Amino acid sequence: MSWWVGMHNPKLQLLVHGDQIADATVQLNYPGVSLVKVNKVENPNYLFLDLEISSAAKAGKFPITFTQKGKKTLSYTYVLNNRDQTPGRIQPVTSKDLIYLLMPDRFANGDPSNDVVKGLQETKLNRDSMYYRHGGDIQGVINNLDYFNDLGVTAIWMTPEIENDMKQASYHGYAATDNYKIDPRYGTNALYKTYVEKAHAKGLKVIKDIVHNHIGTGHYTYKDMPMKDWLNQWPAYTQTNYRDQPVMDIHASEADKKRMLDGWFVPSMPDLNHRNPYVQNYLTQNHIWWIEYAGIDGLRLDTYPYNDGEYMADWALKVKAEFPTLSIFGETLVNSAASQSYFTGGNTSNRGMDTNLPGITDAVLKDAIYEALNGKPGWTDGIFRLYSTLAQDFLYKDPSSNVVFMDNHDMSRFYSMVNEDLNKYKSGMAMLLTLRGIPQIYYGTEILMKNYSNPDGLVRSDFPGGWKADKVNKFTKAGRTENENQAFDFVSTLAKYRKSSAALTTGKLMQFIPEDGLFVYFRYAEDNKKTVMVIVNSEDKAKSLKTARFAERIQTATAVTNIITGEKIDNINTINIPASNTLVLELN
Amino acid sequence: MSWWVGMHNPKLQLLVHGDQIADATVQLNYPGVSLVKVNKVENPNYLFLDLEISSAAKAGKFPITFTQKGKKTLSYTYVLNNRDQTPGRIQPVTSKDLIYLLMPDRFANGDPSNDVVKGLQETKLNRDSMYYRHGGDIQGVINNLDYFNDLGVTAIWMTPEIENDMKQASYHGYAATDNYKIDPRYGTNALYKTYVEKAHAKGLKVIKDIVHNHIGTGHYTYKDMPMKDWLNQWPAYTQTNYRDQPVMDIHASEADKKRMLDGWFVPSMPDLNHRNPYVQNYLTQNHIWWIEYAGIDGLRLDTYPYNDGEYMADWALKVKAEFPTLSIFGETLVNSAASQSYFTGGNTSNRGMDTNLPGITDAVLKDAIYEALNGKPGWTDGIFRLYSTLAQDFLYKDPSSNVVFMDNHDMSRFYSMVNEDLNKYKSGMAMLLTLRGIPQIYYGTEILMKNYSNPDGLVRSDFPGGWKADKVNKFTKAGRTENENQAFDFVSTLAKYRKSSAALTTGKLMQFIPEDGLFVYFRYAEDNKKTVMVIVNSEDKAKSLKTARFAERIQTATAVTNIITGEKIDNINTINIPASNTLVLELN
Repeated sequence: MSWWVGMHNPKLQLLVHGDQIADATVQLNYPGVSLVKVNKVENPNYLFLDLEISSAAKAGKFPITFTQKGKKTLSYTYVLNNRDQTPGRIQPVTSKDLIYLLMPDRFANGDPSNDVVKGLQETKLNRDSMYYRHGGDIQGVINNLDYFNDLGVTAIWMTPEIENDMKQASYHGYAATDNYKIDPRYGTNALYKTYVEKAHAKGLKVIKDIVHNHIGTGHYTYKDMPMKDWLNQWPAYTQTNYRDQPVMDIHASEADKKRMLDGWFVPSMPDLNHRNPYVQNYLTQNHIWWIEYAGIDGLRLDTYPYNDGEYMADWALKVKAEFPTLSIFGETLVNSAASQSYFTGGNTSNRGMDTNLPGITDAVLKDAIYEALNGKPGWTDGIFRLYSTLAQDFLYKDPSSNVVFMDNHDMSRFYSMVNEDLNKYKSGMAMLLTLRGIPQIYYGTEILMKNYSNPDGLVRSDFPGGWKADKVNKFTKAGRTENENQAFDFVSTLAKYRKSSAALTTGKLMQFIPEDGLFVYFRYAEDNKKTVMVIVNSEDKAKSLKTARFAERIQTATAVTNIITGEKIDNINTINIPASNTLVLELN
Repeated sequence: MSWWVGMHNPKLQLLVHGDQIADATVQLNYPGVSLVKVNKVENPNYLFLDLEISSAAKAGKFPITFTQKGKKTLSYTYVLNNRDQTPGRIQPVTSKDLIYLLMPDRFANGDPSNDVVKGLQETKLNRDSMYYRHGGDIQGVINNLDYFNDLGVTAIWMTPEIENDMKQASYHGYAATDNYKIDPRYGTNALYKTYVEKAHAKGLKVIKDIVHNHIGTGHYTYKDMPMKDWLNQWPAYTQTNYRDQPVMDIHASEADKKRMLDGWFVPSMPDLNHRNPYVQNYLTQNHIWWIEYAGIDGLRLDTYPYNDGEYMADWALKVKAEFPTLSIFGETLVNSAASQSYFTGGNTSNRGMDTNLPGITDAVLKDAIYEALNGKPGWTDGIFRLYSTLAQDFLYKDPSSNVVFMDNHDMSRFYSMVNEDLNKYKSGMAMLLTLRGIPQIYYGTEILMKNYSNPDGLVRSDFPGGWKADKVNKFTKAGRTENENQAFDFVSTLAKYRKSSAALTTGKLMQFIPEDGLFVYFRYAEDNKKTVMVIVNSEDKAKSLKTARFAERIQTATAVTNIITGEKIDNINTINIPASNTLVLELN
């Protein structure tokens, strides 16, 4: 129960939940803070208090009292803090970064004492099942911050850490039951704040995964709803159609659009009504609260296309007004660049409004990289899919804000998807780390963790070594197999080179039409110093490439250095590329 | 050698070709016409005369004289005509129309006397080969105008009719040798004008197929080039890469872009340099000349993405300034809606300029219809491809200007592509004639002509009955087989219904997410009268459809009429659809 003085938006709406609280007279008395309006709603157990905090208000505490005839007066202490003005506290996650996505229940168990917490609905640990809790927590992540530095990662994205007090499958975090509280099995709010501070101290940025679309059925606003239209209600349970098309389709039916936006994701996750201003305030303030409280650098917005577009555009403006350096990207698991771009900011001509969303998860580029690795070449297939997907970047205002990835917690793991072919694995990771955008790795991909998303959920397996009882510890070189170290070292070498390369992080991309199964692209900075040349051999036989065609970018260079092996090639008129390999070469 | 008074643009540039003509002194004397500049170029056999025709100039004739020392003075009579101001002379080809594309050499031979013309390079007729001339001509088209009315077609598009005096394969028309002259094997300029007038008299609009990108090697400006950069020249023959991507790709290399735009289409078709202002004037004036001369209603622009974008944008403005009601659409055989939309007018945010191109050939929708007919259903495949392609219409300023088609002279024929399945054929034709845009039929598709584009070119076979010697005449019901009549009658019935249906021509489209292999969409006008409901059964088994989901459009209707069979269905709570059928139903 706290807020801050000195916020851009002087308005604050407090949600008060209590037995018949609507009958109470509400009072507060604090310099610079006024109680503008007391909103009563359908359910007498709720009040929504509109406060205005003037720029003259100072940090401090004050009571808010609730007086009801024949009842004891209730008094709650509300706290106003000063904002943390530390310079550079909130740093943007950009194309200079490499994001590491992990599920806190499945990464490392740093505090076994919180594995099972009394009073919560899920009462046991079961590491043998993918659907029960495994005991991983925030302390486990804190304990392994050096591992991220070792790997070359610069930003951590955890699946949601807030309380999910659900009977089943509470581990995934997308069924919130208290939006203001870290799940006690992960730690405390204070520990989360400590985690952010410790990460920052190691040069690691923190991304918070937030969910606008739904809550869990264990949420108090579901069990005792403030009003009927707090949620999107249907005569009978109605699931979303999971189709992004009705949102953007000029020919869409209202019925399909309503079902997409207002249908429920699953029965255990009630769909919030984003047209309800109380819901809007509740969510927006909660996100602002977390950022200011903990000093978060970026937000990942779950199930972006399922949210109400107008609310999300307004939400982004409000959040950015408070935190101009904050990064935001939305999950858009759709099937075309056109669709992805529809959700990105700046595309006002298509949508008739600006979503104000800078970044999206680039699932279409991911699919294109898979097609480059696994597909058969054709006019539009195989390596050409990747080329032509990048050629559609004109659709985005800024494609370098797209988050590029090979896998995540909802997908089959990359190593399995290339049939455990280590060459293809390296080839894909090389593309991930050298193409435009913000690359993202899913935990364990760097040590060749495998499995398919269906039917068993094993893509959410524990990171070996995260638990004291684990027989192997893959956080260390000694614990990894030779292949796993090859993979780890490949990613780590390239990630560390990338960090220091203006060409790879903020430079331009130039791609050439694939020929003979070879796809060549360059990353280069304005000064053309340390240009990086990438050659993807998409075929399973060795090839040699004549480089005269690339004079535009090779310019006066006469030699190249292989970034992975350190090998120098002095004659670059012709370059040899082994089967299914991608070479990353710095021009000398 | 003529132009018109009263043009929007007072400027005119005459290209003069003659032996050492650059040495000549040029004179003309006519009220309102001034010779502003005589441009000498690299080749002394050319002069480019800049004329200005004031608004006061009157129709009439005047000599232009060329005086050379020691030579006889040459004098040419130039004619200025009044413009044809007949109201409605040039009518836009819109979504109200149905276009019929034919190859004049292969449709009907109305004048055997012009089958072989002395003095031209190709000296023989050979109807047994797809690569020689067959003798079809403009008179053949004139003779069959009633056939188009019978079929329900409202606009005719012929592949280019201008002179192609080439040694080989001169029949296709895309290798011009004289841009101002109808090929004598097709007829004369006067006959072409007569054809347009007769077509107009029968309610048929005329589209001219024009080529900006290239000429034929037999063209006098290739054999005796005005200047080196009249053409895009390369050190050695260099073919285009046929890739649209470099044109729009923000990551494209200049090398790929140059090869796309300046590379030659084939060795026999030199690539014109659109950055050369003399080339620009030559082409633009030629097109304006034909429109004003013959009264053409629409232009189809060949190989649109291969042309210089800035020139084409300027060209469109100049042509539309003279003929505001003229229709224009570009051939864009590309692989994504994003790419197609890049070439259309109004998409300034993507391209940073306006192409001023209203329409394109919608190859992506064609592919999607094929996928709906032939594909296996999946999240993005089968019938969903069609649905999601239409859902990308937000990319276009006006998707109703897209030309929709199932085949053309460069593609395998539709009936072959559905494996000669008459149900699928009807299903596809029903979609073609009821979806948004301007539908286009390729000659013979209405009588189930078949064959594949590779390797034998048989998709350009003669229309049976177009030649006196033909054993069957498929222009008549009696000459067609039962299946052919079924196909013809299906197209004709629907085309004629379409003509009278505001819903199908100018109405809105509403589509619903496919379910159970059934794709349902509606066409409806603002007043909701005579709404058309289309049900596509994409599977090879009969289905029944519950209609409650479509209440938004069915509204108070309680019965429907099947447009093809005339059958009335009185209970529409559930509608039965035979396997692989598309029902076109008018709501009552």
